Amino acid sequence: MTEPRNNAPLNAEPPVFDAAFQQKFAELIAWRRDVRRFRPDAVDPALIEHLLDLAQLAPSVGNSQPWRWVSVDSAAMRVKIRENFIRCNESAASAYQGERAAQYAQLKLEGMDVAPRQFALFCDRATPQGLGVGRQTMPEALDYSVVAMIETFWLAARALGLGVGWVSILDPEAATAALEVPAEWKFIAYLCVGWPVEEHVDPELVRFNWQNRTSVGRGVLYR
Amino acid sequence: MTEPRNNAPLNAEPPVFDAAFQQKFAELIAWRRDVRRFRPDAVDPALIEHLLDLAQLAPSVGNSQPWRWVSVDSAAMRVKIRENFIRCNESAASAYQGERAAQYAQLKLEGMDVAPRQFALFCDRATPQGLGVGRQTMPEALDYSVVAMIETFWLAARALGLGVGWVSILDPEAATAALEVPAEWKFIAYLCVGWPVEEHVDPELVRFNWQNRTSVGRGVLYR
Repeated sequence: MTEPRNNAPLNAEPPVFDAAFQQKFAELIAWRRDVRRFRPDAVDPALIEHLLDLAQLAPSVGNSQPWRWVSVDSAAMRVKIRENFIRCNESAASAYQGERAAQYAQLKLEGMDVAPRQFALFCDRATPQGLGVGRQTMPEALDYSVVAMIETFWLAARALGLGVGWVSILDPEAATAALEVPAEWKFIAYLCVGWPVEEHVDPELVRFNWQNRTSVGRGVLYR
Repeated sequence: MTEPRNNAPLNAEPPVFDAAFQQKFAELIAWRRDVRRFRPDAVDPALIEHLLDLAQLAPSVGNSQPWRWVSVDSAAMRVKIRENFIRCNESAASAYQGERAAQYAQLKLEGMDVAPRQFALFCDRATPQGLGVGRQTMPEALDYSVVAMIETFWLAARALGLGVGWVSILDPEAATAALEVPAEWKFIAYLCVGWPVEEHVDPELVRFNWQNRTSVGRGVLYR
């Protein structure tokens, strides 16, 4: 383990984020995608290390840094996780009927067959770090810290041209058991990472007519 | 409700994120803070609208966009939520003894007294959007989508110079009841938003000797 490298010196002047950066960052947000189509090319391990360093700077409740990374590398373990997905996906598919069922069968929902790097992300629910601050009434804030870290990692990866795909069609208990992690670790996500085959501004589920973007989450209630 | 404005044209060329942008984005990640000390100055509503538009482009399971925003504006409601915090914080404080208890009492854990904009974030657990894709075995993926949206919003706000503080020391059931939202909405977070009094690269809990950053979340297990 290395110490995070991306902490600016503590006496540094705050950076200025100008309009050009703000615009470019908006483009980064717009062009982040959940990638399922990867090139098999290896990813330079130094890029992954750089991203892991950056991800350390993500927010976490009480500065608890509860994210735990498991790099899924062995062929045997990848088969296990992929079978977990296939089982869950067959069950999920059976919930749809008629045209929707046919459409579902056409969707590509993960890139585990090709993605050169794959990570399971856990939350250490028992971490003493942070001394419990901020998580007595909402212990799930620990899980949320892992998710905020994932989004930070995701955007930073996209800025390097790397694609990230989040697979949630998994039985988390079976994945946890297969990966043999400490009992206090809660399974949060499975990420595929690699060079994307293509770049799009529209999500794959939009392109394949499954679910358009809507304004449902854009409204604000006032209280 | 307005349609998202920040979708690039669908036939646009993918943007190039060069080394200078990557470096600046790393600085953005490093200089994001959980802000608790706000100036009382109003925030131009157009900035908030812009951020809400950008946040629509965050990842969500099955493109479900399950985040629901509640702007907490009225003095009466702010008192209710602040009393909720005070109650939970007193209870949390009682878990510490001796020097740690004294230190806890000195920590400033929220900026609800001054922050000009305050939002409760909910997850619509019953949203039909996305047709259930990706959330049959892990329904919590919906909650996680709201969190990924919050981190997107947080970074975009910081790029504009705006501070965001996440308050998790709340009784979520009481907050949900007070805010009178639909029964299917799950309370995820309470955000304070405004212009920060100061900018730091080190988290407040580090500056006040509560919890240093460590390398505990930097390790990787290999499987």
